[in-house]
Amino acid sequence: MRDSYHEQLDAIGDGLVEMSRLAGSAVSRATTALLDADLELAQKVIAGDEAVNALYRSIEGQAFDLLARQQPVAGDLRVLVTSLRMVVDLERTGDYAVHLAKIARRRYPASAVPPELRSTILEMGQTAQRIAVKAGSVIASRDLDLAAELVRDDDTMDELHRKLFTAMLATSWQYGTEAAIDVTLAGRYYERLADHAVAVARRVVYLVTGEFVDEDTLAE
Amino acid sequence: MRDSYHEQLDAIGDGLVEMSRLAGSAVSRATTALLDADLELAQKVIAGDEAVNALYRSIEGQAFDLLARQQPVAGDLRVLVTSLRMVVDLERTGDYAVHLAKIARRRYPASAVPPELRSTILEMGQTAQRIAVKAGSVIASRDLDLAAELVRDDDTMDELHRKLFTAMLATSWQYGTEAAIDVTLAGRYYERLADHAVAVARRVVYLVTGEFVDEDTLAE
Repeated sequence: MRDSYHEQLDAIGDGLVEMSRLAGSAVSRATTALLDADLELAQKVIAGDEAVNALYRSIEGQAFDLLARQQPVAGDLRVLVTSLRMVVDLERTGDYAVHLAKIARRRYPASAVPPELRSTILEMGQTAQRIAVKAGSVIASRDLDLAAELVRDDDTMDELHRKLFTAMLATSWQYGTEAAIDVTLAGRYYERLADHAVAVARRVVYLVTGEFVDEDTLAE
Repeated sequence: MRDSYHEQLDAIGDGLVEMSRLAGSAVSRATTALLDADLELAQKVIAGDEAVNALYRSIEGQAFDLLARQQPVAGDLRVLVTSLRMVVDLERTGDYAVHLAKIARRRYPASAVPPELRSTILEMGQTAQRIAVKAGSVIASRDLDLAAELVRDDDTMDELHRKLFTAMLATSWQYGTEAAIDVTLAGRYYERLADHAVAVARRVVYLVTGEFVDEDTLAE
């Protein structure tokens, strides 16, 4: 029984890693859909979120089940309760990829990204993907150095986010209000996606070190 | 011991209700700060979030403590785990009020809200406050009718949100890119604040009925 119990705990961890991988892939494809005005790809990202939601429900069910039947104590209890929070964060990263894809869909056949911001958005997409995938690695490895690296990646994201605003507020901005709205929302979605992935890594740090991290610094 | 246990459970519920009240008050004051370019009020909302965060940490600590020491089963276990999720949602509602206040602070001494959108933003603020306070009532009363009412209030919020976009995308928009960015962000913050408060109500529905509600419909 005890073995099967730890197998179930491991299965929850594996599910969380898989969710991170799916989120990374989704944000990467959503970015391509945004830049290339690729409607078909946008639709795939939107439809693909169902797999993330299914994993969400499955992991939640397993965690509740273990909590109720096994009455875990101390370390295992902390793992389970933390997993129930990480699964919410990871489900949200999937949602933000969908939000990005929906911008692409709304603006099709045009691209929502003005030419001069293409490289910044591309970099935001790559950074978001890297953060999501690393969050999965942090869950699997509990590597605190990697978690710290992820926080630095998030600083990169914040810098890219500021670049968007600087471009939009320049007097040379010539793309009108609609583009400004879309870029504002897209920037926010990338930033939030990264925040939730970083929150996952910080929750792992909490599991390892037992140190509470303020929710504000988790996912502002 | 059993009595003190249920007293602690009640204390967690009371703390969640208090967080809802603080969030309602914060978003109401943030809205006034936005509309009246009231810097002092904006600063108060920003500083006031510490009280919300302190409650967050306290409730989280109490819930973990009960989970670890009392090994609750079935109903109580569900209440505790759900509380650990509601507290995250409520902490976020406080953050969104702070985000709104920060827009007011950034644009001071100007108001971030163009004259023709004042009534819409005012209504969004009132709706957000109503939803936050009602979420607290739903926690206290477990009244499913009130929870349903809250979902309808959220539809009102979505409508108001759409009104903002319609105004910004009209050819008559004359307030430039900076105002469009601020209104886009403010609209998003009101909507998200409401989403998290509605999520709290939906989690109460889950506690009462035992029916899982998809995370997507909880707080998209």
